[in-house]
Amino acid sequence: MLLKNVRFAATPKGILENVNIEIEGPTISKISKTVPVGSKTGNVIDCSRLLAVPSFVNAHTHVPMTFLRGYGEGLTLNEWLTTRVWPAEAKLKPKDVHAFTKMGIIEMIRSGTTAFNDMYFFMDEVARACAESGVRGFLSHGIISLKDKTKDLKETERFIREWKSKNELVTPFVGPHAIYTCDEETLLRSKELAEKYKTKLHIHLSETRKEVYDCWRAHGMRPVEYLDKIGFLGTNVIAAHCGWLTKNEIKILGERRVNVVHCPVSNMKLATGGEMPLPELLATRANVALGTDGASSNNSLSMFGEMKMAALLHKHARWDPTVAGVDEVLKMATMNGAHALGLDAGILEEGKLADITLIDLDSTLVQPVVRDRLLAHLVYAADSSCISTVVCNGKILMQDKIMRVDEENVREAFVKAFAKFS
Amino acid sequence: MLLKNVRFAATPKGILENVNIEIEGPTISKISKTVPVGSKTGNVIDCSRLLAVPSFVNAHTHVPMTFLRGYGEGLTLNEWLTTRVWPAEAKLKPKDVHAFTKMGIIEMIRSGTTAFNDMYFFMDEVARACAESGVRGFLSHGIISLKDKTKDLKETERFIREWKSKNELVTPFVGPHAIYTCDEETLLRSKELAEKYKTKLHIHLSETRKEVYDCWRAHGMRPVEYLDKIGFLGTNVIAAHCGWLTKNEIKILGERRVNVVHCPVSNMKLATGGEMPLPELLATRANVALGTDGASSNNSLSMFGEMKMAALLHKHARWDPTVAGVDEVLKMATMNGAHALGLDAGILEEGKLADITLIDLDSTLVQPVVRDRLLAHLVYAADSSCISTVVCNGKILMQDKIMRVDEENVREAFVKAFAKFS
Repeated sequence: MLLKNVRFAATPKGILENVNIEIEGPTISKISKTVPVGSKTGNVIDCSRLLAVPSFVNAHTHVPMTFLRGYGEGLTLNEWLTTRVWPAEAKLKPKDVHAFTKMGIIEMIRSGTTAFNDMYFFMDEVARACAESGVRGFLSHGIISLKDKTKDLKETERFIREWKSKNELVTPFVGPHAIYTCDEETLLRSKELAEKYKTKLHIHLSETRKEVYDCWRAHGMRPVEYLDKIGFLGTNVIAAHCGWLTKNEIKILGERRVNVVHCPVSNMKLATGGEMPLPELLATRANVALGTDGASSNNSLSMFGEMKMAALLHKHARWDPTVAGVDEVLKMATMNGAHALGLDAGILEEGKLADITLIDLDSTLVQPVVRDRLLAHLVYAADSSCISTVVCNGKILMQDKIMRVDEENVREAFVKAFAKFS
Repeated sequence: MLLKNVRFAATPKGILENVNIEIEGPTISKISKTVPVGSKTGNVIDCSRLLAVPSFVNAHTHVPMTFLRGYGEGLTLNEWLTTRVWPAEAKLKPKDVHAFTKMGIIEMIRSGTTAFNDMYFFMDEVARACAESGVRGFLSHGIISLKDKTKDLKETERFIREWKSKNELVTPFVGPHAIYTCDEETLLRSKELAEKYKTKLHIHLSETRKEVYDCWRAHGMRPVEYLDKIGFLGTNVIAAHCGWLTKNEIKILGERRVNVVHCPVSNMKLATGGEMPLPELLATRANVALGTDGASSNNSLSMFGEMKMAALLHKHARWDPTVAGVDEVLKMATMNGAHALGLDAGILEEGKLADITLIDLDSTLVQPVVRDRLLAHLVYAADSSCISTVVCNGKILMQDKIMRVDEENVREAFVKAFAKFS
């Protein structure tokens, strides 16, 4: 495939102008100023009015939760979970998870996301949905040890064995849910599993004040300190939220080079309070990515809204418009997300995986088209209506707004599965 | 025109199901369960897969500033204004303002806004752009008395006389810029002008800490107290921002029934600090609307992003998910905005002006389609990609995403006018 005469190719590292991007198999094989010989054969997309960006990486999601979008608004976290979310989830069957995931994946593709880091259950169905839709899923069966100490660990290992070499788009991770739902033994056995299968750990960390208080009461230290003490933290840990950190915890996350996922919209919506110390974390060796969390607490899976919120929240919190710059925020949504997942993408360079989104430069939302303003347009002004074409793993998932999957089928399956919840 | 078999018609006051909305001239003439006889003639739109909402009212904008979108990112307010905004604005000619406004209006129509409250200069061009595009402009020539005490007042009166009866879509207002750019005499003469022509006053109020400090130093009281003392405040005042208010100022704004315009994105982006006391203001008799401010400090003119931010910011600030409910926020973006401008719209009722936006219920972003979740979908999940058709003053401005104005022409004029700024 050839993306011919790309007007601009933007990455957090810089902006290229009028280049040709050649794709061979799943990979960007060449980026050059010259149109390659023989380019009339094969799939050639004229990109002279388009902006190419690395497809976004949504580094913390619960994609099947599309069915809970808009359900139980304006409740406190505990009331929301106990009276709405958990009772609804108890009714879920595997085929429901499949249908709800496929709908979420369409939303992600339409908003330029082709890789996501998910924790839920019935993960075979999420994996199948990814394989069918052509997007990358990094998938963890959520591990909770409150009632049964081995069931979820066993299911995790089964899922890893099943999917570790089955489909290039699906990567199984290990997902100990949180320090308040997993005991120490379970956290350590999760870590062992991740090491055994050379994969990553996905955990919720320091999301609420209650989590911090309870940790302090139980262990006499804060959540990050506790995880560090038991030897859990490392470069293979992806920790979502991290909203309540002390200086010492920031230092630990940096030293252990943990991947931290900022989820500003979900945190604000659930009113978890405080602000993740973004500028301080960016100054360490921690890798900071960005995620939407589930559609139940956002209520969108679009990384555009998430980037804008990340850029605005910290300016507001610090009374300082110079923090959370557009280059940093775009990097969180692309390169850093890819790095967190161990994905060789997130930047437009030769040899990287061809996960590319093409944005319509004729869209009203990104005017005026000026090189120096493109990153700001991406972070603050664009929405899903600007996206024309989306490529993942060298394959087209949407072209000129037409999806390759049958949207009508996906909608019908969603409505059918949803019937018992309405 | 007939909007036939509307699946849902949502307003902050409630949701109707399966109704027919008849439009005669500029007005909603009938809303009923029965399809009217003779409905096969005339313009009939099948709305069986659509959600009708009152078109949004953007209650504080500087629409011509589309040309500054993404210019001077990450600067402090003073540096941004003095080194970027003002030097660029000094080069503006009337025809530039016309071209830049038309582009902004397309963005607003595509995101469901058909009325806006604008303050800028060369306002005849903004008025012309509204008349040509079919949207409602409530327009003030910005009045500043720092250099010349009469020039802007004269221009305001000329503009009012010129446009007060010229076009039903254009309503001239009086726009004293702020208490720090207008002396007391100018504020009072602005008020006299508004009374003379039975129109409204549009002012920036209590946007930054500097404004509050300077007011205190000059007058020994805070901005709202100062305006009240000189007799400026009343139901005809539309005050944008109001980010820094004391309890006493909230009380005054309520007693005087002032229209207050919340602009959360712009305030956060410019890091003006603090939060507008939204729950407290909503508890008074003040009328609270919503605005994007200019594309230079947002960088979008979409009310979707603004609604989401208004809903999230206050939950976050109070650590309380029960504040800024979706019904309240949607009301701010529709009914309250209309009320502020003296516009008989903002709600879908017989006799109201037919300013209606139709949203595609097949859009992935608004799934699942459940009556009780529609307001949450509008505030948190929808973006401009969901909007199918937009009606203003009984006329179609966009149908099935096709704009009635020639977008290509508008873009060409924009690019041509922008050349000297790039």
